[in-house]
Amino acid sequence: VTTLPQGFTAAGITAGFKESGDPDLGLLVTDRPAVTAGVLTTNRYQAAPIQVTKRHLRRGSAKAIIANAGNANACTGSEGLAVAREMAKLTGKAIGCKEQDVLVASTGKIGWAPNKTLLKPGIEAAKLGLGNDADPFARAIMTTDTRPKIAEAAAGNASLVGIAKGAGMMAPTMATMLAFVATDASVSRSLLTEALRKAVADSFNTISLDGCMSTNDCVLVLANGAAGGEPMLPDDPGADAFTQALSDVCKALAMDIVGDGEGATKVVAITVRGATTEREARTAGRAIADSVLLRCAIGGGDPNWGRVLAALGTTTIPFDPYQVDLFWGGELVAKGGAPGPGDLDKARLATQERDVVIVVDMHRGEAQATTWTNDTTVEYVRFNSEYTT
Amino acid sequence: VTTLPQGFTAAGITAGFKESGDPDLGLLVTDRPAVTAGVLTTNRYQAAPIQVTKRHLRRGSAKAIIANAGNANACTGSEGLAVAREMAKLTGKAIGCKEQDVLVASTGKIGWAPNKTLLKPGIEAAKLGLGNDADPFARAIMTTDTRPKIAEAAAGNASLVGIAKGAGMMAPTMATMLAFVATDASVSRSLLTEALRKAVADSFNTISLDGCMSTNDCVLVLANGAAGGEPMLPDDPGADAFTQALSDVCKALAMDIVGDGEGATKVVAITVRGATTEREARTAGRAIADSVLLRCAIGGGDPNWGRVLAALGTTTIPFDPYQVDLFWGGELVAKGGAPGPGDLDKARLATQERDVVIVVDMHRGEAQATTWTNDTTVEYVRFNSEYTT
Repeated sequence: VTTLPQGFTAAGITAGFKESGDPDLGLLVTDRPAVTAGVLTTNRYQAAPIQVTKRHLRRGSAKAIIANAGNANACTGSEGLAVAREMAKLTGKAIGCKEQDVLVASTGKIGWAPNKTLLKPGIEAAKLGLGNDADPFARAIMTTDTRPKIAEAAAGNASLVGIAKGAGMMAPTMATMLAFVATDASVSRSLLTEALRKAVADSFNTISLDGCMSTNDCVLVLANGAAGGEPMLPDDPGADAFTQALSDVCKALAMDIVGDGEGATKVVAITVRGATTEREARTAGRAIADSVLLRCAIGGGDPNWGRVLAALGTTTIPFDPYQVDLFWGGELVAKGGAPGPGDLDKARLATQERDVVIVVDMHRGEAQATTWTNDTTVEYVRFNSEYTT
Repeated sequence: VTTLPQGFTAAGITAGFKESGDPDLGLLVTDRPAVTAGVLTTNRYQAAPIQVTKRHLRRGSAKAIIANAGNANACTGSEGLAVAREMAKLTGKAIGCKEQDVLVASTGKIGWAPNKTLLKPGIEAAKLGLGNDADPFARAIMTTDTRPKIAEAAAGNASLVGIAKGAGMMAPTMATMLAFVATDASVSRSLLTEALRKAVADSFNTISLDGCMSTNDCVLVLANGAAGGEPMLPDDPGADAFTQALSDVCKALAMDIVGDGEGATKVVAITVRGATTEREARTAGRAIADSVLLRCAIGGGDPNWGRVLAALGTTTIPFDPYQVDLFWGGELVAKGGAPGPGDLDKARLATQERDVVIVVDMHRGEAQATTWTNDTTVEYVRFNSEYTT
């Protein structure tokens, strides 16, 4: 049981979108209007629910989130858009608010609009199931996740509860990563927007699983102010603590997603330091994390540092290849772009662990960033080839 | 038996770079100086042999190519550079030419300089084994290839023989793609350079296996003029025929590489049409080909067209998502970015075949390009995780 912040209730029920009969519809409601902020996928193919949510986010406040798993409602044209709107409309009707006060998210199969007839009974059942535990909602949005993902934090007298589904960019469904954060903090829209941008940059944007960007990715936060006090502004005392708490929740969810990647057995932290800017360090880290060859090697327990350098070498960063040092499990396995004095057997042992740490130093500047990924395994391919549309 | 063009001899012997004891050193010699052209990897980590070959290519003519498999001599610093130079020097000594007349290539494990003591006996044995069959050389450069790769063509009275090793960008060795073409055509350096650039653009650059660019990739061509006649210039009659023949050889080798990818069971042709430029069509095709999710789906026989659109959506091409049509196995499975009237069962049947054909029409312009890839299978991951440094 994870108790939601004051004023929030949630439910997760089976509406019938998943063939398995598992819970597949989640409803999150706040008893008073909440300030909202959201980060949505930049994929040019935005799923229908993303298009609806994008419009509704402009209002800056919301009363509910309705989310289904089992059907992503992506690449579904006008029929899909009608279904996403209907989800908002029926939810508004059930809980007594405007269609525009409802945010919508979907994850699952792509290319078919969800069955419209499932919506009304599903949303009504969800309304009847509303309670203050976050767990049923977290279970209802799972696809290939092996466990529900929930994280909590506190900021002053306010609490934050985050719920995500992932298996990262690797979902066979294409419908990737959803995260929702509910908080009873009293914050202004400007603070919430700023804090969310920072939190996402430090969490979900530091994980890179297979370079695929979903049509359905979204992170939404609702702050209903039930903890009391005037809405905090970005410069108010307490704003930093709130921003930090939101970051903590997002980071915990992101790490949970990496650790629960399809078929993954390891969590890999790739720190690139000695960059001229943090952005440069992130670009380098992402190029390394996206190397399928490297991630296969790690799955096999092999400290194949050559694949790290080869991936770094494909970027346009004007680094000097003969100035690059590479630590694998703390061992200096490459120095100046050539074999280093580190103990490769120790690096190999370190690669047997669940957490694998790779540090690349480009010796160009003072900036650094860490990118997180996992390993590619036979099970990953099995997941993604046996799923049929 | 594939007879080399006039004036060329080749050998493939076991020098000891591969632990298996399989042939691992290839020598190609021309009895007179040959005009040369080459295309080398753009990875910032260029292997030591690539650095040597780059310098020797500037001379515009060469007498031999020495190539080993089993050790890529990449990320090996000054020690590796000394070995690559030694390979050229000993080869020059053996066949009676300058060190600078020898081009060097390596493929195999990364991060260790090859054992220098293997060079002298290996190169001497290779010299003794020289003959006019291309086959032993082709076998000596194989890594995870399941078969030697040779292609032939004729242009007027000249012949061309190409030899490659691939398994594409997927080699667990990181040391990817090598291709060598020997021809007795009499051509100028300008024609050879132009023809090779065009041939590579139409062949090796249209295949994309896992987006990894090797430290060791190279394509080298030697034209020794033994077929007689004045060296042909780009505008001479016959120049087009020569260019076409070189393209044909490179295309045949590239297709052979795609079909022999590690663990691959299918060859996938992705044609993007309705682009404003060919370059744009190639960018789109490559983004689609590099989608691991899509390639897993194809391995599983699933016409998962949503993954094609999702990959296209990650590019910066300003196409209209709702104008895109997609044919899979000839079936219009998506129209205007939404499900199309095509028969998905027929598309699924077509995905059982060895050759899978996907056509994407962006409806922006008249340009088109085809990108080739293969499927990602459990065997691919096994290959790439079980290899140990």
